[in-house]
Amino acid sequence: MKRAITPTRQENFPEWYQQLVKAAELAEHSPVRGCMVIKPWGYMLWENIQSLLDKRLKAAGHQNAYFPLLIPLKYLEKEATHVEGFAKECGVVTHHRLKKGEGGQLMLDGKLEEPLIIRPTSETIIMEMFSKWIKSYRDLPLRINQWANVFRWEMRVRLFLRTAEFLWQEGHTAHATKEEALKEALHMLNLYKDFAENILAIPIIEGEKTENERFPGAISTYSIEAMMQDGKALQMGTSHFLGQNFSKASNITFQDSAGKLDLAWTTSWGVSTRLIGGIIMAHSDDDGLILPPRIAPVHIVIIPLVHHLTFKEGIYNYCHKLKEKLATLSYMNCPLEVHIDERDMRSGEKIWSWIKKGVPIRVEVGPRELEKGYLTVTKRHRGHKEREKQSEEQFACNVIDQLEEIQQKLFQKAKCFRMAHLREINTKEEFYQFFKKERGFASAHWSGDPSIEETLQKELNVSIRSIPMNRERRGGTCPFSGGKSNCRVIFAKAY
Amino acid sequence: MKRAITPTRQENFPEWYQQLVKAAELAEHSPVRGCMVIKPWGYMLWENIQSLLDKRLKAAGHQNAYFPLLIPLKYLEKEATHVEGFAKECGVVTHHRLKKGEGGQLMLDGKLEEPLIIRPTSETIIMEMFSKWIKSYRDLPLRINQWANVFRWEMRVRLFLRTAEFLWQEGHTAHATKEEALKEALHMLNLYKDFAENILAIPIIEGEKTENERFPGAISTYSIEAMMQDGKALQMGTSHFLGQNFSKASNITFQDSAGKLDLAWTTSWGVSTRLIGGIIMAHSDDDGLILPPRIAPVHIVIIPLVHHLTFKEGIYNYCHKLKEKLATLSYMNCPLEVHIDERDMRSGEKIWSWIKKGVPIRVEVGPRELEKGYLTVTKRHRGHKEREKQSEEQFACNVIDQLEEIQQKLFQKAKCFRMAHLREINTKEEFYQFFKKERGFASAHWSGDPSIEETLQKELNVSIRSIPMNRERRGGTCPFSGGKSNCRVIFAKAY
Repeated sequence: MKRAITPTRQENFPEWYQQLVKAAELAEHSPVRGCMVIKPWGYMLWENIQSLLDKRLKAAGHQNAYFPLLIPLKYLEKEATHVEGFAKECGVVTHHRLKKGEGGQLMLDGKLEEPLIIRPTSETIIMEMFSKWIKSYRDLPLRINQWANVFRWEMRVRLFLRTAEFLWQEGHTAHATKEEALKEALHMLNLYKDFAENILAIPIIEGEKTENERFPGAISTYSIEAMMQDGKALQMGTSHFLGQNFSKASNITFQDSAGKLDLAWTTSWGVSTRLIGGIIMAHSDDDGLILPPRIAPVHIVIIPLVHHLTFKEGIYNYCHKLKEKLATLSYMNCPLEVHIDERDMRSGEKIWSWIKKGVPIRVEVGPRELEKGYLTVTKRHRGHKEREKQSEEQFACNVIDQLEEIQQKLFQKAKCFRMAHLREINTKEEFYQFFKKERGFASAHWSGDPSIEETLQKELNVSIRSIPMNRERRGGTCPFSGGKSNCRVIFAKAY
Repeated sequence: MKRAITPTRQENFPEWYQQLVKAAELAEHSPVRGCMVIKPWGYMLWENIQSLLDKRLKAAGHQNAYFPLLIPLKYLEKEATHVEGFAKECGVVTHHRLKKGEGGQLMLDGKLEEPLIIRPTSETIIMEMFSKWIKSYRDLPLRINQWANVFRWEMRVRLFLRTAEFLWQEGHTAHATKEEALKEALHMLNLYKDFAENILAIPIIEGEKTENERFPGAISTYSIEAMMQDGKALQMGTSHFLGQNFSKASNITFQDSAGKLDLAWTTSWGVSTRLIGGIIMAHSDDDGLILPPRIAPVHIVIIPLVHHLTFKEGIYNYCHKLKEKLATLSYMNCPLEVHIDERDMRSGEKIWSWIKKGVPIRVEVGPRELEKGYLTVTKRHRGHKEREKQSEEQFACNVIDQLEEIQQKLFQKAKCFRMAHLREINTKEEFYQFFKKERGFASAHWSGDPSIEETLQKELNVSIRSIPMNRERRGGTCPFSGGKSNCRVIFAKAY
């Protein structure tokens, strides 16, 4: 059977991904190396992510603010590990104007005394401001979030997953005690997990990163990791406990209630447009995108089936009445998003465009539906052929329940997939066999030796994704070194 | 009488502005030359502007998308006037990594083959994408909007008014005919006028710009201009009819319904964080910011007056009940924003902080209020002393009307101010006297000769802000040249 996306997931997953992004009109490569153009359908997804996540951040006490795009090199240098981590992927601004040369061609002019770096992340500049704002324990905790674009030069670009410029939110907090800062970092990790599972319908393994994978300058990095349909791991968000590293670098001191001067404890955490890559790879099929209803920009698309102009007016009128009726319903505390496709093109073409875009429910209205008084309803997650007849009454009464059912089914399906591809492994041989012949995550013991990670990365392209936090830690033997291990960790190939 | 902001508007308007921005905690200069930090209170204002304007743009058929931050020099060069207009204020990226030198210091590395420019505006890169997306008349009109940061190197920085980096929206549209594109440019101008007047309570003069003040690359530029309290003009938004200039440069062609290939007609238009400067300078007084209710992040602040701990619990409980009650009310289709100031500080200090921040209505609740059963209500726009006693019942019943009344009064006040400072002038002597000794706008005839503009700019720092569009055009004599004039135009000193 012909499917809308060629190749299929089975045939070539990375190429399927590229073709899907194109077919669903989510994004495109731009003529600027490494930078993507996010098209309206992709940007609507990002707007929904922003608005739903922003509400949660505000409810958790974070305030939005905005900091400069450019960071003086000397700020980046303040935290030694930090600058080392980002030095190899910096966009560097060196001039502030252009002038005409003798031949009329434009030349660089106005050389800056000190180069400016396009922010790869904003710890250093935000901490500089924190050091001015924080004087006393009364100013703590300070919780600031920024929605912004950031820039990390990337050679191997994959739309949404790995681009030089991407959009994200970065939260930065300062606290009076180590305990409070650590609690905040873990709280944000859980907020991300909850968002990914409940809104994006993607099951999460949360845990700590190994030293190798730590954010440059952090004491500990935590992440939410999800399994994609090719069995690879996608890191969907990170939260960092930064200890006093950045406080020391930027001199963030405060007077405690006894009048003593102390260094603040800080955290940072972020999610980005990468989440859109996660939605695609967790749920979609060989016909295109499948969107969890809670994040879908359009919940229901109505397709008027007009094969003869005689019926056009009647069908269109009915579609508009139906839309009006449905738009009075509320979903996720907002009006249900209903769209009528009135474009001047063949119905088949229309239908396929919405299948590829992943709208959860499609309603077709043609002369037969009008005459016999029913709607032809198709749910995207069941494929594209399984049509149901529903009366308008019946549909309007339980469409919200139907959307919620789809949301739950997508989450359950992704959870079952992960369960089927998460293998407990106890020997090195089995481990190598698994990653050479199968797809998925391995749960295995590890002695804690970083050189094992490096070997596995080199030989299998596998890394430790997560050291579980909330599970029972049971000791065992590391299958790679024979050494003692405190707990099983999650290994996978990763994006 | 001591006022919260020193100096007063009368004493030194520019310095009053700086001090107000600081006192209201709207923004700060950052350590990065020309770039500001927008603090939470300022950013909330921007979020409200974004959300209210975005709804209007979407209703007008525009879709949001996102385009690259960096623009290859060769794209900027495609439209000759355009690049000339921006060449002197470009942030130029020349390298993509840093490496350690022999002494351990960081050095530039990875020189780019072609420099990249941080977008000062995005016509060139967006038109490049339009040329790929537009094939047929069926793809037109194409209406795209982007919310983004842009960068124009500025030497004389004024927070919100003139900064190197600022936040804005830029709309870009392509049309099949000249008439349709021109209509779009004017439609957006009117949308901006309506937004400024109805939401920001700032009366607008809309009109066309002279050739001297045209956007680089435009056929015609339209703007909304407002009078600030120092009599100067603030250009609050622009809309450009670009003709086929950018279509030619980027080769945006489409097949018309007869199959003939034609060039598209384009427009662009934008407003920025500058609007916040407009809100400040149009409405505020010597005690700080005054916010029109429709744009205020908080509509009502409740101040518990606790001079003795005995009453604390009762007062706080009452404040929370009051907040809950008020929060069920709806204003501008959203819940009324009510805030209780529970900070651990003196009541007087709390009250002053909200006066300076410009919250429209302040409610004080102390032991006396609790005992006698009334609220002490103060409206920011009336100064800060005029307290009214209102019963809770009375207050809750008409608070929405009271907010709307404040909104209208601020608009009327700004309109009266403008009327009082808009002078019809017929002789050169009077014109020079006016701009040397008084403040305001002059409505005077102009022959159309650009050299007059240059002289006035040099001698009086005055420019033509607006060639009126919707007024009766009546001929007259240019007081500067004695030449013939088609209509009066608006002259002013400007930000």
